[in-house]
Amino acid sequence: MSVFTPISVEEARVFVAPYQVGDIIDFQDIAAGVENSNFFVTTTTGRFVLTIFEKIPLADLGFYIGLMQHIHKAGIGCASPIATSNGIVLRELKGKPAALVARLSGSDIAHPTPEDCFAVGEALAKMHAAAKSFPLPMKNWRGLDWWRRETHGLQQYATQSELALLASELEFQANFDDLNLPSGIVHADLFRDNVLWSDHHQPQMIDFYFACHEQLLWDIAITANDWCLDFAAYPAARLNIENARALLRGYMTNRPLADAERKAWPQMLRAAALRTWLGRLGYHYYPRTSTVTHAKDHPFSERLLRHFIDQRDDLLALLPD
Amino acid sequence: MSVFTPISVEEARVFVAPYQVGDIIDFQDIAAGVENSNFFVTTTTGRFVLTIFEKIPLADLGFYIGLMQHIHKAGIGCASPIATSNGIVLRELKGKPAALVARLSGSDIAHPTPEDCFAVGEALAKMHAAAKSFPLPMKNWRGLDWWRRETHGLQQYATQSELALLASELEFQANFDDLNLPSGIVHADLFRDNVLWSDHHQPQMIDFYFACHEQLLWDIAITANDWCLDFAAYPAARLNIENARALLRGYMTNRPLADAERKAWPQMLRAAALRTWLGRLGYHYYPRTSTVTHAKDHPFSERLLRHFIDQRDDLLALLPD
Repeated sequence: MSVFTPISVEEARVFVAPYQVGDIIDFQDIAAGVENSNFFVTTTTGRFVLTIFEKIPLADLGFYIGLMQHIHKAGIGCASPIATSNGIVLRELKGKPAALVARLSGSDIAHPTPEDCFAVGEALAKMHAAAKSFPLPMKNWRGLDWWRRETHGLQQYATQSELALLASELEFQANFDDLNLPSGIVHADLFRDNVLWSDHHQPQMIDFYFACHEQLLWDIAITANDWCLDFAAYPAARLNIENARALLRGYMTNRPLADAERKAWPQMLRAAALRTWLGRLGYHYYPRTSTVTHAKDHPFSERLLRHFIDQRDDLLALLPD
Repeated sequence: MSVFTPISVEEARVFVAPYQVGDIIDFQDIAAGVENSNFFVTTTTGRFVLTIFEKIPLADLGFYIGLMQHIHKAGIGCASPIATSNGIVLRELKGKPAALVARLSGSDIAHPTPEDCFAVGEALAKMHAAAKSFPLPMKNWRGLDWWRRETHGLQQYATQSELALLASELEFQANFDDLNLPSGIVHADLFRDNVLWSDHHQPQMIDFYFACHEQLLWDIAITANDWCLDFAAYPAARLNIENARALLRGYMTNRPLADAERKAWPQMLRAAALRTWLGRLGYHYYPRTSTVTHAKDHPFSERLLRHFIDQRDDLLALLPD
């Protein structure tokens, strides 16, 4: 069960009325969420997602929703929050913050081609550029401090082998905490299932609820670690070199990488793999109360991190000229 | 809760192995089903839906699964069941029949244009033609007899006004039970959410579990009643004349309508509206145990039926020359 705050179609009708988007002709629970309550709302004029935010503090929602509005206005393909005729975006429903967001059509791609990776890299760089002028602050809640806390919490659950790798990788990553790389607002979770492709094969981003101020290269590494996996090598974990180069080439059409970023690439791939692995270890050892089965393959993430550690500077070969 | 038979990713791995579609890299419950248990399975080579059939008799599954295979082989865009290396399609999982079906990419269209309707009409006619050579029988479990039983069952729940309309419409429809119109295998549920559109804007059909032998015009009327709704008129219920004509023109590129079909069109629109309304009345008065909220707008279906009754022969204007 993943709708935490059920609402009736009548309650939805009352909530939706001030947006002036027509009458509701279809209304459905979305069972897939694990953090919020989500509903598909189809009106006579369009399709929307109504979200009731269950956990995100109201102060932070201003950042996420504002960012989506800001970059959508700048022409980035992404989910776009709707304002009421009074210009209000975040409203209250059942005593919780709620918003209506335009629903994107299209579906995600499970097995991306180099062309898909190029398009995603390009879209990511454009998003970074468009987000530059967004004024609100947001720290990265999933940076080194979180990795340390999370590793500490896993002490009594994880295996000795997992804990040893976590400890050594944390020590390694701590050496790079003060790198002075280009920073800005990042998506921080641009996995394949957070990009929907329309009829015209344009990538459109969803789920900005990990967005924060961070090193831009970290966002590229997170994206590469999911888009550029070499599935033909499975169960071995490694990146497909064509896909990785295509993603980076796509990114660099909008912003060339600095020399310091090229040098930091192998370490950043490891940082991104560590973050994904830690998240999946958490889901594995502290499963939430939910009927939704979603096997997050944490041993695969561990193998990817070990692969990056073994490869070291060979990972520079993933960078195009 | 809509997964009735939960399975683990390890159980899925064992089930999927003989299909030779690679290793499972992602596995998720699909909470949306109300009749079967469904799971998204992503492997290193593709995406699939694993379905455990909870209620459909094994004898009938041979028809549905065989039909999907048959028309897919004939080049119709539709969900396609996968065979194991031994050629087996229907197998057992947790003591129930189960199948692996290729998952279509793309998404459905909520507000179709005349071009979309033309493409759906064309696809429907091609499906009718391709299904002609499929040998298995299947009666329509939702024909006049079902309407009568369902109406009888609603006696103690429905309003006087609903019951009066049901009674008069049943009497009207009974006069047409022996029309000798072109018949064959029909989809019988080709609503907007049962057609997925790919990157190349090709309609692809899913959910063949209402398919049966019936008058072909009935299938066209069911399709038109959902694809050609005039949402600008909502809450009034009527068809958009451009969409209806486009759908019929698309259909007629493959099979011209017979004179008897043109004459029967107004009555068939009513039959299709009655069937949808009866289904929704059932969902309304006997809600199933499910956490999934899906508002099926039964008063709208009633208004559509009343509109068709009022319009009578004016509905012939929806037919193109």
